[in-house]
Amino acid sequence: MQLKIKPVEVVSSIDWIDDHIRIIDQTYLPHREFFLDIFEVGRVWEAIRSLRVRGAPAIGIAAAYGVYLGVKDLPEDGMQPFHTDVERICEYLATARPTAVNLQWALDQMVKTARKMQGQPVARIKETLLELAKSIHEDDKRVCAAIGQNGQEVIPQNANILTHCNTGSLATGQYGTALSIIYHAHLQKKNIHVWVDETRPLLQGSRLTAWELEKTGVPHHLIADSMAAWVMKEKKIDLIVVGADRVAQNGDTANKIGTYGLAILARHHKIPFYVASPISSIDFDTGSGENIPIEERESDEIRFIGKQQAAPRETPVYNPAFDITPHDLITAFVTEHGIVKPVFSKNLEKLRPQQD
Amino acid sequence: MQLKIKPVEVVSSIDWIDDHIRIIDQTYLPHREFFLDIFEVGRVWEAIRSLRVRGAPAIGIAAAYGVYLGVKDLPEDGMQPFHTDVERICEYLATARPTAVNLQWALDQMVKTARKMQGQPVARIKETLLELAKSIHEDDKRVCAAIGQNGQEVIPQNANILTHCNTGSLATGQYGTALSIIYHAHLQKKNIHVWVDETRPLLQGSRLTAWELEKTGVPHHLIADSMAAWVMKEKKIDLIVVGADRVAQNGDTANKIGTYGLAILARHHKIPFYVASPISSIDFDTGSGENIPIEERESDEIRFIGKQQAAPRETPVYNPAFDITPHDLITAFVTEHGIVKPVFSKNLEKLRPQQD
Repeated sequence: MQLKIKPVEVVSSIDWIDDHIRIIDQTYLPHREFFLDIFEVGRVWEAIRSLRVRGAPAIGIAAAYGVYLGVKDLPEDGMQPFHTDVERICEYLATARPTAVNLQWALDQMVKTARKMQGQPVARIKETLLELAKSIHEDDKRVCAAIGQNGQEVIPQNANILTHCNTGSLATGQYGTALSIIYHAHLQKKNIHVWVDETRPLLQGSRLTAWELEKTGVPHHLIADSMAAWVMKEKKIDLIVVGADRVAQNGDTANKIGTYGLAILARHHKIPFYVASPISSIDFDTGSGENIPIEERESDEIRFIGKQQAAPRETPVYNPAFDITPHDLITAFVTEHGIVKPVFSKNLEKLRPQQD
Repeated sequence: MQLKIKPVEVVSSIDWIDDHIRIIDQTYLPHREFFLDIFEVGRVWEAIRSLRVRGAPAIGIAAAYGVYLGVKDLPEDGMQPFHTDVERICEYLATARPTAVNLQWALDQMVKTARKMQGQPVARIKETLLELAKSIHEDDKRVCAAIGQNGQEVIPQNANILTHCNTGSLATGQYGTALSIIYHAHLQKKNIHVWVDETRPLLQGSRLTAWELEKTGVPHHLIADSMAAWVMKEKKIDLIVVGADRVAQNGDTANKIGTYGLAILARHHKIPFYVASPISSIDFDTGSGENIPIEERESDEIRFIGKQQAAPRETPVYNPAFDITPHDLITAFVTEHGIVKPVFSKNLEKLRPQQD
């Protein structure tokens, strides 16, 4: 099936243009569609850290291009092996956000390639790194389309779907993960309706998902996060689908804060709870959620909303950006290779990429 | 025990001053402590509707004074019975907010008194109505103190307590309901710590509860509503205590949106879930939560946060202000007459006021 979601195709989260990347600066949405040209690895780090570009897959893509931007002007007759420069830059970029595994995954690809090419002309290695970044970007688009199509197996006609945070075109190379499933269902005229959690503190639901769904004409209503339970009880919700920042080998899933609570509420109301995740978000080397680091962010994300002060200036705050949903609350994963059902430790393992 | 919480005693939600009421306008908190003098019943209606004064008990108090403000300048030689004027004004004030039962409860007291005094001099009836409003106000202060003290039975030493919305001095005549329990535990040096839900959309947790706890020196941390589940899992939470806007005869409880979800999360994590409620919030004439009307508020409460736009301008929104927590998720009620345990339909009934 050919997807035709023009506006979302037009507004891409990230593009490579000649010699630099252009992102839509998501901190300005939905007020302004402001595009930012980035020529330098330090600005890539800042854009990831400040959530100008966000969403696990999009971060991976930005970081891959960032590695190239970091090495492209290095001398081509260096005294030390070129791959150590690549490693140094990758270590730096990895510090921008600790939870999303795609960032580390993309950086690992870049390092591996540089190591394998050791001894070859540096100009050639640079060129290959740029090609690899572009191919990570293109692969992600294909993966997202496949997730969207595979997800149709779990979306009935007239489905009421609840989602959290933003997992759409803005978070990926194209279409998204959980939102890709929603887009594909809409295009197949399944007459769906979406409940959008606003997703405090940074409001990715209201600022980004509502904006994407408006642009693409998918029927939806926005709610505050605290309303999800009541909507499950009072209105019809047929399923919940969310994305993932990192999936452990046993299926425990790190995702935007609030996901764990939704999974408990889904269980209570007997609503299936799906996680849409590319293979690149599965961390096969992490056995369970206990070993996934949880990023804590600044207190002012809670004390302020944009420039609006919402709490006393010195109020103590706890601000974890992610939580871990234990695998036993997850009905199934939707990946580019199809639906993965329990037992996850066994069935996810089948998707482990071959070591090269 | 003598309570000594100076700042909260000083900042009263509502005071009667000579011939009018003075409220702290809660829509300006925590930025500004702005006091509003109200001389006229229409302004009382607006203040309740716009949440300048809020919290079920405080609304009841404001409405009682509002009735007096509505009748005090009426001619004292009317052709029709004076109590019909009182009824008309009470019907008007009742429309300001549909869910909180204290509003209706206070208005009923005013109407009953006017009816009983039919035939007496109108000036005398007016005077009695003002005295009744003052006594509703004073009674609430005593009730809140009693709830605070009775609640100590369920608060262990070193308790970590989660609360939602604002149920403190700002929401009542003094001390509050759920927050009164917290204040009393703090004064008894129980070494407690409070997790404060910010309580979207109107942020009564961050704007009001965090402000009250800061003023009174109670240790606390503010979180987004979506973090409550993760805090239950990751940090120690010993109990949850919330207020109530209306309790049905079987114990089903209408309270700020988000309460129902917290009750499910508490059950999942085996955390006791308490509702602090004065008898005046129990609606003995409503059998179950199904018959409690749920106020839906304006879409812009979700689309905007203060003046900050958070979603596309035309995003469809669902904005229920309350939800219903079914009685079977509630561990116990804390009332001015003590702790009420299940079976609630039987044990709450014992508190039904005698018909007069």
